[in-house]
Amino acid sequence: LKIKTVLFDIDDTLYDASLQMRNARLNAVRAMIEAGLPVDIESGYRVLKDIVNEHGQYYNKHFDALLKNLGLKWNPRVIAAGVVAYRETNLAYLKPFPDTIPTLLRLRESGYKLGALSDGLPVKQAQKLIQLGIQHFFERVCISEEFGLKKMAPRLFEICLQEFSNKPAEVIFIGNDLTSDIVSANKAGVISVRIRMGDSRIGEPVNSDEKPKYEIRNLSEIISIINKIENPEK
Amino acid sequence: LKIKTVLFDIDDTLYDASLQMRNARLNAVRAMIEAGLPVDIESGYRVLKDIVNEHGQYYNKHFDALLKNLGLKWNPRVIAAGVVAYRETNLAYLKPFPDTIPTLLRLRESGYKLGALSDGLPVKQAQKLIQLGIQHFFERVCISEEFGLKKMAPRLFEICLQEFSNKPAEVIFIGNDLTSDIVSANKAGVISVRIRMGDSRIGEPVNSDEKPKYEIRNLSEIISIINKIENPEK
Repeated sequence: LKIKTVLFDIDDTLYDASLQMRNARLNAVRAMIEAGLPVDIESGYRVLKDIVNEHGQYYNKHFDALLKNLGLKWNPRVIAAGVVAYRETNLAYLKPFPDTIPTLLRLRESGYKLGALSDGLPVKQAQKLIQLGIQHFFERVCISEEFGLKKMAPRLFEICLQEFSNKPAEVIFIGNDLTSDIVSANKAGVISVRIRMGDSRIGEPVNSDEKPKYEIRNLSEIISIINKIENPEK
Repeated sequence: LKIKTVLFDIDDTLYDASLQMRNARLNAVRAMIEAGLPVDIESGYRVLKDIVNEHGQYYNKHFDALLKNLGLKWNPRVIAAGVVAYRETNLAYLKPFPDTIPTLLRLRESGYKLGALSDGLPVKQAQKLIQLGIQHFFERVCISEEFGLKKMAPRLFEICLQEFSNKPAEVIFIGNDLTSDIVSANKAGVISVRIRMGDSRIGEPVNSDEKPKYEIRNLSEIISIINKIENPEK
């Protein structure tokens, strides 16, 4: 069996998106408190989290809603303090895992083709790859919304495999989330690898669809998994 | 005559917004070309400038429109390259003029109250002051849209003067643009000072409304102008 392509989820697979988001929100609330928001950090963070859950990650009035939900008057200075702190923290944590670039490099020099595959907004996800400094490693970037898909789905794998002219059995996919990433990869028939990173590092599959073919804790372990797949007799 | 308050326009008065915007756009087009945009830098820049003029500065699909206007297919990778380069350049040039902070400090320690007054979006303008590191110098920040005003207007000065409890003759305003800043300041009766900075540093008043009471080339010159106003006998 010869692997031709390795596909990577982005958030919590190539970098620590959970840590980034948590700290960006905490620092945003801290900065808003410094700018006059009369709330303690824990309650501010909790209300902000509820707002994100309600309106989604790409809503652009989170901090306006925070003031409103706390029963406070709109205040552009307080909102601006939150926006600046959020963006600066976000950028500071947009760094690859220590073994991300070495692993991508090793795979490329071993002749594998690499792709990124995730849900989300195509421009936002492409921005992340650029800011992580890893966009040139990937031959294709397949993001759900570009193909009219609202979230991760087996169909996204089919489209991406077509772009690579690969059969499912020739492709490995690495992702962190069991219920979206791993389920879709399994249904598409690609070799699924769960990486235990980010908030979803805890938790076990509740059915066979959610069960990954392999499991790793660090990205670099993918090298030996490929070795095992390609040389099963050893 | 005693000056009580000094009001500052933000863009091209406290920092070089013209330089920032020009370089941000140029670097965005450069990055898009590197990411595959088949256009030369001059034409790309020209088309982008036309798009900004048409849709305004706060339109958030400038780079989508650039591809469209060039007859090209939407490409999230190329757009993301533009967005990242634009933001990074924007941030790199969001620095006060060399004499901005020394001048603000000198005025504050001399007992004057300071305010920022400009058109634009309140949250965006407040963000700039934070990122310039000068938000704490200003007792009030008066931005047109917060008061339902679409652009710079004499009414904005009236509102801001009320917040300071000042009479027009006690207030100096420094701005770069003759047709908006200086006209409105003159109509409101405050002492208008033109700073020759940014793209509008060239050009002369075409009528008496546009004629500033004083003119400076660097922010620090405001100190001697205040001296002259308060001690006219010298």
